[in-house]
Amino acid sequence: MKNVIIINGPNLNLLGERETGVYGTVTYADMCAEIAESAESMGFDSCETVQTSHEGEIIDYIHAARLDKCGIVINPGAYTHYSYAIRDAVAAVNIPVIEVHLSNIHAREDFRHKSVIAPVCAGQICGLGKIGYVLALQALLDILARMRGDLL
Amino acid sequence: MKNVIIINGPNLNLLGERETGVYGTVTYADMCAEIAESAESMGFDSCETVQTSHEGEIIDYIHAARLDKCGIVINPGAYTHYSYAIRDAVAAVNIPVIEVHLSNIHAREDFRHKSVIAPVCAGQICGLGKIGYVLALQALLDILARMRGDLL
Amino acid sequence: MKNVIIINGPNLNLLGERETGVYGTVTYADMCAEIAESAESMGFDSCETVQTSHEGEIIDYIHAARLDKCGIVINPGAYTHYSYAIRDAVAAVNIPVIEVHLSNIHAREDFRHKSVIAPVCAGQICGLGKIGYVLALQALLDILARMRGDLL
Amino acid sequence: MKNVIIINGPNLNLLGERETGVYGTVTYADMCAEIAESAESMGFDSCETVQTSHEGEIIDYIHAARLDKCGIVINPGAYTHYSYAIRDAVAAVNIPVIEVHLSNIHAREDFRHKSVIAPVCAGQICGLGKIGYVLALQALLDILARMRGDLL
Amino acid sequence: MKNVIIINGPNLNLLGERETGVYGTVTYADMCAEIAESAESMGFDSCETVQTSHEGEIIDYIHAARLDKCGIVINPGAYTHYSYAIRDAVAAVNIPVIEVHLSNIHAREDFRHKSVIAPVCAGQICGLGKIGYVLALQALLDILARMRGDLL
Amino acid sequence: MKNVIIINGPNLNLLGERETGVYGTVTYADMCAEIAESAESMGFDSCETVQTSHEGEIIDYIHAARLDKCGIVINPGAYTHYSYAIRDAVAAVNIPVIEVHLSNIHAREDFRHKSVIAPVCAGQICGLGKIGYVLALQALLDILARMRGDLL
Amino acid sequence: MKNVIIINGPNLNLLGERETGVYGTVTYADMCAEIAESAESMGFDSCETVQTSHEGEIIDYIHAARLDKCGIVINPGAYTHYSYAIRDAVAAVNIPVIEVHLSNIHAREDFRHKSVIAPVCAGQICGLGKIGYVLALQALLDILARMRGDLL
Amino acid sequence: MKNVIIINGPNLNLLGERETGVYGTVTYADMCAEIAESAESMGFDSCETVQTSHEGEIIDYIHAARLDKCGIVINPGAYTHYSYAIRDAVAAVNIPVIEVHLSNIHAREDFRHKSVIAPVCAGQICGLGKIGYVLALQALLDILARMRGDLL
Amino acid sequence: MKNVIIINGPNLNLLGERETGVYGTVTYADMCAEIAESAESMGFDSCETVQTSHEGEIIDYIHAARLDKCGIVINPGAYTHYSYAIRDAVAAVNIPVIEVHLSNIHAREDFRHKSVIAPVCAGQICGLGKIGYVLALQALLDILARMRGDLL
Amino acid sequence: MKNVIIINGPNLNLLGERETGVYGTVTYADMCAEIAESAESMGFDSCETVQTSHEGEIIDYIHAARLDKCGIVINPGAYTHYSYAIRDAVAAVNIPVIEVHLSNIHAREDFRHKSVIAPVCAGQICGLGKIGYVLALQALLDILARMRGDLL
Amino acid sequence: MKNVIIINGPNLNLLGERETGVYGTVTYADMCAEIAESAESMGFDSCETVQTSHEGEIIDYIHAARLDKCGIVINPGAYTHYSYAIRDAVAAVNIPVIEVHLSNIHAREDFRHKSVIAPVCAGQICGLGKIGYVLALQALLDILARMRGDLL
Amino acid sequence: MKNVIIINGPNLNLLGERETGVYGTVTYADMCAEIAESAESMGFDSCETVQTSHEGEIIDYIHAARLDKCGIVINPGAYTHYSYAIRDAVAAVNIPVIEVHLSNIHAREDFRHKSVIAPVCAGQICGLGKIGYVLALQALLDILARMRGDLL
Repeated sequence: MKNVIIINGPNLNLLGERETGVYGTVTYADMCAEIAESAESMGFDSCETVQTSHEGEIIDYIHAARLDKCGIVINPGAYTHYSYAIRDAVAAVNIPVIEVHLSNIHAREDFRHKSVIAPVCAGQICGLGKIGYVLALQALLDILARMRGDLL
Repeated sequence: MKNVIIINGPNLNLLGERETGVYGTVTYADMCAEIAESAESMGFDSCETVQTSHEGEIIDYIHAARLDKCGIVINPGAYTHYSYAIRDAVAAVNIPVIEVHLSNIHAREDFRHKSVIAPVCAGQICGLGKIGYVLALQALLDILARMRGDLL
Repeated sequence: MKNVIIINGPNLNLLGERETGVYGTVTYADMCAEIAESAESMGFDSCETVQTSHEGEIIDYIHAARLDKCGIVINPGAYTHYSYAIRDAVAAVNIPVIEVHLSNIHAREDFRHKSVIAPVCAGQICGLGKIGYVLALQALLDILARMRGDLL
Repeated sequence: MKNVIIINGPNLNLLGERETGVYGTVTYADMCAEIAESAESMGFDSCETVQTSHEGEIIDYIHAARLDKCGIVINPGAYTHYSYAIRDAVAAVNIPVIEVHLSNIHAREDFRHKSVIAPVCAGQICGLGKIGYVLALQALLDILARMRGDLL
Repeated sequence: MKNVIIINGPNLNLLGERETGVYGTVTYADMCAEIAESAESMGFDSCETVQTSHEGEIIDYIHAARLDKCGIVINPGAYTHYSYAIRDAVAAVNIPVIEVHLSNIHAREDFRHKSVIAPVCAGQICGLGKIGYVLALQALLDILARMRGDLL
Repeated sequence: MKNVIIINGPNLNLLGERETGVYGTVTYADMCAEIAESAESMGFDSCETVQTSHEGEIIDYIHAARLDKCGIVINPGAYTHYSYAIRDAVAAVNIPVIEVHLSNIHAREDFRHKSVIAPVCAGQICGLGKIGYVLALQALLDILARMRGDLL
Repeated sequence: MKNVIIINGPNLNLLGERETGVYGTVTYADMCAEIAESAESMGFDSCETVQTSHEGEIIDYIHAARLDKCGIVINPGAYTHYSYAIRDAVAAVNIPVIEVHLSNIHAREDFRHKSVIAPVCAGQICGLGKIGYVLALQALLDILARMRGDLL
Repeated sequence: MKNVIIINGPNLNLLGERETGVYGTVTYADMCAEIAESAESMGFDSCETVQTSHEGEIIDYIHAARLDKCGIVINPGAYTHYSYAIRDAVAAVNIPVIEVHLSNIHAREDFRHKSVIAPVCAGQICGLGKIGYVLALQALLDILARMRGDLL
Repeated sequence: MKNVIIINGPNLNLLGERETGVYGTVTYADMCAEIAESAESMGFDSCETVQTSHEGEIIDYIHAARLDKCGIVINPGAYTHYSYAIRDAVAAVNIPVIEVHLSNIHAREDFRHKSVIAPVCAGQICGLGKIGYVLALQALLDILARMRGDLL
Repeated sequence: MKNVIIINGPNLNLLGERETGVYGTVTYADMCAEIAESAESMGFDSCETVQTSHEGEIIDYIHAARLDKCGIVINPGAYTHYSYAIRDAVAAVNIPVIEVHLSNIHAREDFRHKSVIAPVCAGQICGLGKIGYVLALQALLDILARMRGDLL
Repeated sequence: MKNVIIINGPNLNLLGERETGVYGTVTYADMCAEIAESAESMGFDSCETVQTSHEGEIIDYIHAARLDKCGIVINPGAYTHYSYAIRDAVAAVNIPVIEVHLSNIHAREDFRHKSVIAPVCAGQICGLGKIGYVLALQALLDILARMRGDLL
Repeated sequence: MKNVIIINGPNLNLLGERETGVYGTVTYADMCAEIAESAESMGFDSCETVQTSHEGEIIDYIHAARLDKCGIVINPGAYTHYSYAIRDAVAAVNIPVIEVHLSNIHAREDFRHKSVIAPVCAGQICGLGKIGYVLALQALLDILARMRGDLL
């Protein structure tokens, strides 16, 4: 079964309302619907999308995912820059995890340039807006195919 | 309607009991009562006071406040020094936020000298004890008056 | 006798003319008049307001204040960030000193984030505009009352 | 009454499954059982063991412990390295707290070398595996005896 | 006309031969063929692929691209980490540029964690292997559609 | 009226006597005479030259210049490296300011490599000896012409 | 044969006399006697205790121990913070080494927070007073048992 | 023979097209023509102007210049900030070299504040636009006159 | 003629009244009298003692001293730690200068550990109280004797 | 076949002419001749010597060498200190590479103390003048012998 | 009994022979004789002078001195800059210790600017040559007199 | 007389036994024998080889060598990275000193990348194994020949 979960971190629920100069005007709900549609068309059996501003809940979601998902796409929001606890959770599960950011974190404040989570992810996509999630799903398929030996 | 919320972060519930050399012996409950009384006398319609040691709940309080409050007074406790997630929440709401600290954070350990939240607040008051909250409420009135064009 | 002095540092004389995007268009003279009026209404016997761009004169004002004032409100301007000599002057006098900044120094250039004077002040107020001085005067009254044992 | 609580932080629930090269294959449940048994044989009246990946809950556990425990053994997991909020909670309670790490944090990534919590604990034990908890309990007994004046 | 250029920097010509533990065994020629095929199937009119280990030539390619390409996908190799000259070239052209890395630069040596070029790119993709280039092409299509107003 | 002022900071009065290996043997008075002559020949209506080792007086000169000068050439001496108060004064006036240094500050001690004032000046000239002042005057003419729209 | 050596570094001979506020009033000789007694009761065949303020002698003791001891407990005193030579000696021998500190080094001066030796030890115990040595001996027994395969 | 060369580094060929907010709209060709004209009117026998984005070619130009030029004016573009190879080339030739920047590098990104080349140049001019080159030529004449002993 | 000047910087006038825990209770006037007496008994023709909190005046005193003194003893107070302007003044005069501090600056706050003036002085004496001035005068005599060739 | 290449980086062509205080007066051509002679006498089949100031050409030389040389001796000149691209080229080839510097880079400017290339070389020789190249050739023979198993 | 010991650290035995440009040509033996003579004339009962290049022996000398000396004058040579073990020894004894350096350590290499020992000494004298030891002895007398209550 | 001494620092006695992955399996004694043989065949009159883990003894060996050796080859082991005392000893003797390391210190832990001794040596050889000592002896001969004027 190809189930995937998309975990969105703090403040992403305000998408479309918060700092629209940086993040655009598409709402969080609309974005999730679009991504789910793309996931379906790519052949995923399910694509769960969750959002929470609680660090501990993000960790719990990651732990749970190790039991019934084949991969995780995560946008840890500001936790990206200091949550070593989330980093350890990612390192503790055996499924591939891809980090996504809507904005180009390298073009913003200094503290956003460094991700403490990226070193234990498979890869990172940033600055490409909501399509970043869809690209991450494609990359997950590629990784899974390589893990199954279907691809070089 | 002039509703305001005062959000107190981790460990402030132990006020009056914890490190009394730094924070004094007035209890948290007494302090809240005093502030509420001052708020009323200043003409606020309501002054809610909340305390939580959970970073995520502070973020949720800030999100909620954007719907029915005209301003926030926040004492983020130790989260002041590393919670970029709370910073983003403050930046995401359109109402004025003022940061308050009971003690003079610049006269204590190095790690307390820097606030990662202050840059997105309207201002900061520290070192003046519990009256700091009352002064912040006055400043909020001043900001709101200026926003309404009543003042220069 | 409750006499207080408000010491303004370098470039504050240009208020209303200088960087109005940051500091607004109220002139220095108008601001001083407003503050003096507030001080009187709060019950201060006198409220002297001085301005100088000379570091040494700021130190001399602080020294002199120890003889006939009950407190100091100081906006050291750019000296805030490097004048250890003013810091030592503040530490050398036995009356309470409160640091005030018109703008939110934490939201500006890096060098403005750190005050070398704040650690020896009672507290600091920043980002709240000219009302910051008035709030500082209120805080002084609170400190003096506590010193006299009138308050907890 | 000699009650003690052992507080385990984020990701420790995955013990025996997570990064077994670093942490070994003993499960979290087995480890807790072993420690409880040791505690009993040492004469503790009770030894509660809790685990949570939520920073705020760790703080709540510490606050609660001040009311009915004689000491705390804490393994804050990755929070060790940035949670000043947990540090403040430890500093706020009057009972002895000992920090324990299963792995030798000084032999791992740079960010793990520094504990922001250790400075307010009684002491720290690391790198000795699950026996580290048992040694911490022994040390607690020693501290308590010294506090009662039984020992030098 | 939708023409795109993929610019590969130093040492990428040795792909499939060099550090295969990090970069895999697919040769540079094979990878280019695969990407070109993908580009064609996505509807690009042309997809030029160039490789050079000369910093100045990378700059010249970027300059030339501004005249007849609609976008650039660039893997600057080790120049990523210090070539402010390439950064300026990217900033000087008006077409979107996406940075791609085969390996997860955040999981390797410290000096690879920072890209001096990413801040002036539209976005960055890393760690996903050769599919990263294909995802970048997709993202380019998305950006171009948004620039033409076809998409939100 | 094209009036200009040349403000020289601390220790420049000792020119010709002080560290002649670095600064040469021309006296301060001779240098000023030469510059004044050049200014006259360039068409300036007046060229005032002042020297003071007092930081506050430099600030006062800058403030005064905003009323009757069209530009300032300043050599802040050692204040270059730490006087944020002079920086603020330069930023506070609306006339162009050019920073000049006789010696090549980049070839001397580390602390001289950084100017805290240059970021708010129009430009900086260093290492070219006393002709640096004359070049700065020429540049001022160029800036003034561009401000008047005479030049591109 | 289970022989162990306890190596104490510079200034520990003054225990009971030196900085008693930090280290207590038990003398070095008394502490050694207590530890030896504990070692015997734990089943060690011998427990040698040495003290020297000479870095080179500490290295010689470590070298010698590799020939006839099953483990080392070391308190390197101030050498902890800079002796890479002792670190190399520890790394060069194949027996387990545990670092012990009487005081909580994380609660003292900055330079004491980092141990250059701990990364090559099995583990570290600090802040627990003289019982720290006894706990280290217990941990050694645990490590030896695991090395022999007696324990998980 | 008074021959001079003006060496322009990476991306300067795009002048008038690139980042016109920073660099203005005059084209590179027009600027060169203007400078050449000025050089002629100052009495230089020839003024060669070259541009290249290749670090190695800049070095080759500097080497060649030592044979038939009396001085070099160089704008190393972004190489200013990291090319120790160009620095060594400047140090290796015996003719005076002056560094010029069109924009005020001290008012831009942090990485532009430091020139690794300036310490081995005679001097540096920045922020004054294209007239900076002309001023540099004047300074060269002054240096050459002093070298010939015509001037003090 | 052996004339010497002792220059005391900011806040030293408050000696005996200011931070008596650090500086003792001897007044500034008494200390000056004692030093003058010692100077006389050592054979100095005159010993002028001045105090000012103005950086510029300290520089003026140093400049003046080069004309009629054989040496300077200076306690620059807090200017010690940032006044490069005073440093340049000391470097500009040809007479020996010795820096004195009443307290042990290395045992106080971090910012007091570094003197930017000491590198251009003959030597530095700190932590020895008011006798430090007398020892500095003795050292001056020694330096002068060596300059005259009377001593090795 | 034992072919070796000696790659010299930027500015080495000026040897004997450039900074003779640091590098001596032997010309580049003479040095190459001497080294070639030594190589021949050591039994190398060929010893090619190349010099270029172009970073990209150095990389191309390294790439080419992997096809027909048994080892590389490289003096990367100033590229030593920042060319991660050359570092990657060295890491990408399977033949031993030895870094040589004529001068003692540790006794010169700070930026010369660190080599970004050395970590991926077999070893480094510096400060021994032109004989350093000959010693590197000897070391290459030793490494090759060990690779063939002729030596321990 | 007023006995004092002067402890000289590494390389001081070579005085008069080593780096005479920095340290002069007086031999170590001559210097010791001179100091002893001065000590006697000041009224010390004995003045022992020792020299060793062994860190451990310096510590042993300090330990021993606590039993029969009234004070220590120490020149720790290069150990000044890193021997926290010597620092701890100084802190462990109850007699006053004064640090002396022949040369002005602040005018030499960066690593010599910081003393890790000075913070626990009574004071420091540097840059005054061999008379520095004599001044230190005088200061010791002053401290001892104050300890006995003879002086203020 | 051409006598040379090879000084080996801490832990080198364990060669062949210690960290054989890094240092190989040749024993210290065998290596010394090989080097002595090479020295003899090169024409040295004697080649003494010493080893000690005591910093002070290394200094004493260096001091002694200045009397009867023509040069020193030193492998200071871990002291390389912090012993400023050994650095001063090397700087104090007038004979050439060459630093040798068996392993490539630049490819190991960060703290091994910097040698505090190398800046005062003639040169440094690292990463080439035991042949490094032999190459250093050859370099010594070359330096001595140049000192005698036999070579350029």
